[in-house]
Amino acid sequence: MSEHFDTVVRVRYAETDQMRVVYYANYYIYFEVGRVEYMRHRGVDYKQMEQQGDCFIVVAESNCRYHRPARYDDLLRIRTRVTEIKRRTIHFGYEIFHDDTGELLATGATAHIVCDGKGRPKTLPEKYRRILAGTTPVEPSPPPMP
Amino acid sequence: MSEHFDTVVRVRYAETDQMRVVYYANYYIYFEVGRVEYMRHRGVDYKQMEQQGDCFIVVAESNCRYHRPARYDDLLRIRTRVTEIKRRTIHFGYEIFHDDTGELLATGATAHIVCDGKGRPKTLPEKYRRILAGTTPVEPSPPPMP
Amino acid sequence: MSEHFDTVVRVRYAETDQMRVVYYANYYIYFEVGRVEYMRHRGVDYKQMEQQGDCFIVVAESNCRYHRPARYDDLLRIRTRVTEIKRRTIHFGYEIFHDDTGELLATGATAHIVCDGKGRPKTLPEKYRRILAGTTPVEPSPPPMP
Amino acid sequence: MSEHFDTVVRVRYAETDQMRVVYYANYYIYFEVGRVEYMRHRGVDYKQMEQQGDCFIVVAESNCRYHRPARYDDLLRIRTRVTEIKRRTIHFGYEIFHDDTGELLATGATAHIVCDGKGRPKTLPEKYRRILAGTTPVEPSPPPMP
Repeated sequence: MSEHFDTVVRVRYAETDQMRVVYYANYYIYFEVGRVEYMRHRGVDYKQMEQQGDCFIVVAESNCRYHRPARYDDLLRIRTRVTEIKRRTIHFGYEIFHDDTGELLATGATAHIVCDGKGRPKTLPEKYRRILAGTTPVEPSPPPMP
Repeated sequence: MSEHFDTVVRVRYAETDQMRVVYYANYYIYFEVGRVEYMRHRGVDYKQMEQQGDCFIVVAESNCRYHRPARYDDLLRIRTRVTEIKRRTIHFGYEIFHDDTGELLATGATAHIVCDGKGRPKTLPEKYRRILAGTTPVEPSPPPMP
Repeated sequence: MSEHFDTVVRVRYAETDQMRVVYYANYYIYFEVGRVEYMRHRGVDYKQMEQQGDCFIVVAESNCRYHRPARYDDLLRIRTRVTEIKRRTIHFGYEIFHDDTGELLATGATAHIVCDGKGRPKTLPEKYRRILAGTTPVEPSPPPMP
Repeated sequence: MSEHFDTVVRVRYAETDQMRVVYYANYYIYFEVGRVEYMRHRGVDYKQMEQQGDCFIVVAESNCRYHRPARYDDLLRIRTRVTEIKRRTIHFGYEIFHDDTGELLATGATAHIVCDGKGRPKTLPEKYRRILAGTTPVEPSPPPMP
């Protein structure tokens, strides 16, 4: 399992529902932000991976457990790690914490298949695999902007 | 100005916010539904227009006035019409009514530029223009599914 | 396990992403639509259940497996059933089919805890439990509007 | 007209559509972020304004002009100012720039009515009005987290 990386986002009004909490589907958007910033932190720009590498990380499965509600204007800390990486698949794990109190709000996971731009499964190029797996040291870099 | 066409949608939980009303940006999604169903009613399948006609109706302007709030589970009647159509531009107008009470909830408009798949402006093919402008009679058709 | 109920929705432009398929979080919105229409079909108006019954069906877990992509303008058939119902919890299962081809696009589940308006767990009133469990026959009713 | 305040957000995959650009309704979500961060910068926490001040800034009108498309992973600079403030109404103006190139992508405005928690119009308390109007100097504060 790789080291984790933390990204902080603030809950938008648009993301709440009339129960006065974050709507349950929107946690998956936070997972997306966590995943992309994890990759950027390790040196993989997902946009370039799609455009230049013809590598798309297509979601095959997702799940989330909701422990406590996130609310409007809360700062959320999204903790992301790669939990498994194989030739054609990547699994990510997530924990979302309330950034002020440290409370664990949600945990989840996503499983992905590597595809080309036409949606056909392909092997994840070695350079991406090594970087995402964490066997390549991370260069110091500026903090990501959520 | 063309004749209007009505589409009915039901407000989803996902579309509300913590003020217990529909979040203001989501009315523009209802406008999209109204616009696409208006086109389908007149005989233009927007998906095919993109795929086969290489015609994209790109949004250049949008506006909305909110008269009364729409709420969870409300049935909304979206009334759509073409208010202006030129060689390269189309304007739509919208009214959203509460379907049970008939109250007017919102009014709005969108202006569009016709583009090809690369985002370059192009002339709207004559067949689409005639149909959308309402100078071609509408064939009887089954009611659209929102 | 209860009998299933089918609801049909059409994919909106807003629900697609730049991979030209439905964004993965949006399947959970379809699940919400399926769940609410399932309840309405069996005679439970979820809005009234919140407002008059002070019963909120809070999501505790969700998951989805994506088999094939749903695309813009597709009609999706959401098949919903109650898979388990206890004093304080309800589990729903979902299958999403492409309505034209019958292909299975996604499967998923959600687990819910019954709460009052302040978020405290409570026992699901017997009348709702009987109806949702399917031990009460369904009255004939008009088809729901998605 | 007040001084502007800039907030930077990064475009999420969820916010794109199959035209490979940001879906037009989502600019209004960026406006919300700009508006809330503008208020926070001037010393008004909108969450507290709702909870403790019983002041809701309800949207009455919104509009947007789309000059150039925003794309996935772009950093967007949202420039927000108060363009008019009266006893019961506030108007905001927005410009969205591509943060790297400086290109102007969109401009827009929203008009708001001040309401209490029951949706009844009320007078904006003097302390908020002075602060938002810009006649009170802004205390130095840490940069907002988008």
